[in-house]
Amino acid sequence: MRVLVPFDAREPNTRLTPFFTADQRREFAAVLRGDVVDAIRAAGHEPELLSTGAIDADCPVRIDERPLSTAVNAALTELSPPAGILMADLGLVTPAAVSRLLDSAGDVVLAPGLGGGTNGLCVRDPAFRVDYHDGSYRKHTARARDCGATVTTVDSFRLALDVDEPDDLAEVLLHGQGDAPTWLAEHGIEIAPGDRCTVRNRNDGNGAQ
Amino acid sequence: MRVLVPFDAREPNTRLTPFFTADQRREFAAVLRGDVVDAIRAAGHEPELLSTGAIDADCPVRIDERPLSTAVNAALTELSPPAGILMADLGLVTPAAVSRLLDSAGDVVLAPGLGGGTNGLCVRDPAFRVDYHDGSYRKHTARARDCGATVTTVDSFRLALDVDEPDDLAEVLLHGQGDAPTWLAEHGIEIAPGDRCTVRNRNDGNGAQ
Repeated sequence: MRVLVPFDAREPNTRLTPFFTADQRREFAAVLRGDVVDAIRAAGHEPELLSTGAIDADCPVRIDERPLSTAVNAALTELSPPAGILMADLGLVTPAAVSRLLDSAGDVVLAPGLGGGTNGLCVRDPAFRVDYHDGSYRKHTARARDCGATVTTVDSFRLALDVDEPDDLAEVLLHGQGDAPTWLAEHGIEIAPGDRCTVRNRNDGNGAQ
Repeated sequence: MRVLVPFDAREPNTRLTPFFTADQRREFAAVLRGDVVDAIRAAGHEPELLSTGAIDADCPVRIDERPLSTAVNAALTELSPPAGILMADLGLVTPAAVSRLLDSAGDVVLAPGLGGGTNGLCVRDPAFRVDYHDGSYRKHTARARDCGATVTTVDSFRLALDVDEPDDLAEVLLHGQGDAPTWLAEHGIEIAPGDRCTVRNRNDGNGAQ
């Protein structure tokens, strides 16, 4: 199955500013994106990046500067379902998690993201259109119902976590299986002691909080 | 399989203080605990509460005032594995998620919690002992290795989320399938509009942030 990976090439991961320079944030975003692309390919599917600007990648890249939902819907129309959509910042992604999403039965299969979002979709109904932001999980289930599509929700921690804030880096260090945890360790990020895991940069001793 | 559900009867869910009175927090903790007990039973297993004090429940209750890990290890020794352990505040729990934990092969099966914790365990190795707090996921995988036990990690969003902070209530409203989302709605808690889901109490208009 073809799987779109939307990517905002402009100013990625701004909430990680306390830890990284702008160049490092761009580099880390590319590592995360690479982990998602690799997991899709290892699961036997065909990744295709949908980027707001030119990027280096070892898979096809479709450039579309329009807002996320507009760009995804245009690409979906062109690909014609079945097609998958996976966010580019899933730092815990594994081939098995991708397979659970894409192999689940259902006209519309959703992998919820923490905070009400939708981190993964498998669309088999050609009438379904995405509508990201503002609690997209609810909107997507409602839209699927409006299409008369059957809906399946995949229960995956690995797909639920998108890397957004410093605390998410702790999850990547603990559970990530791609290149992202290695990149973080090489850049001095480590788990800080404490009851709820957070991270610090061992080079400067800054905590995430 | 017998499944221990540790419960701190003293002062539950203090971080939900902005939304609820102490009585309401105790009531909500009982609802969450009831959802976990019901899901264990619906999955075909035998729940047993391990409480720091007397509580009302429709399943066996074992009282132990000692710290969490001490109490769980004492109960594990007595029950003799295989046995399960599930936290009492898993607001997204379902029978299917419980089955994925308890049916997975492995001498020690772990369901990670967000923040480095361990929200579910299935222990088949009698030498394994728990050690909660301070990033228990890492400690549990290390301890299992020290026992020579095979380790399996279950990829479940439903088991990863424990209800701790106001934002977690949004997840319960969106994805919960037990009595907890109903209780929240009855107490005025609803999703607040915005990109990342949070909650507010419609009775007083307070947001979570």
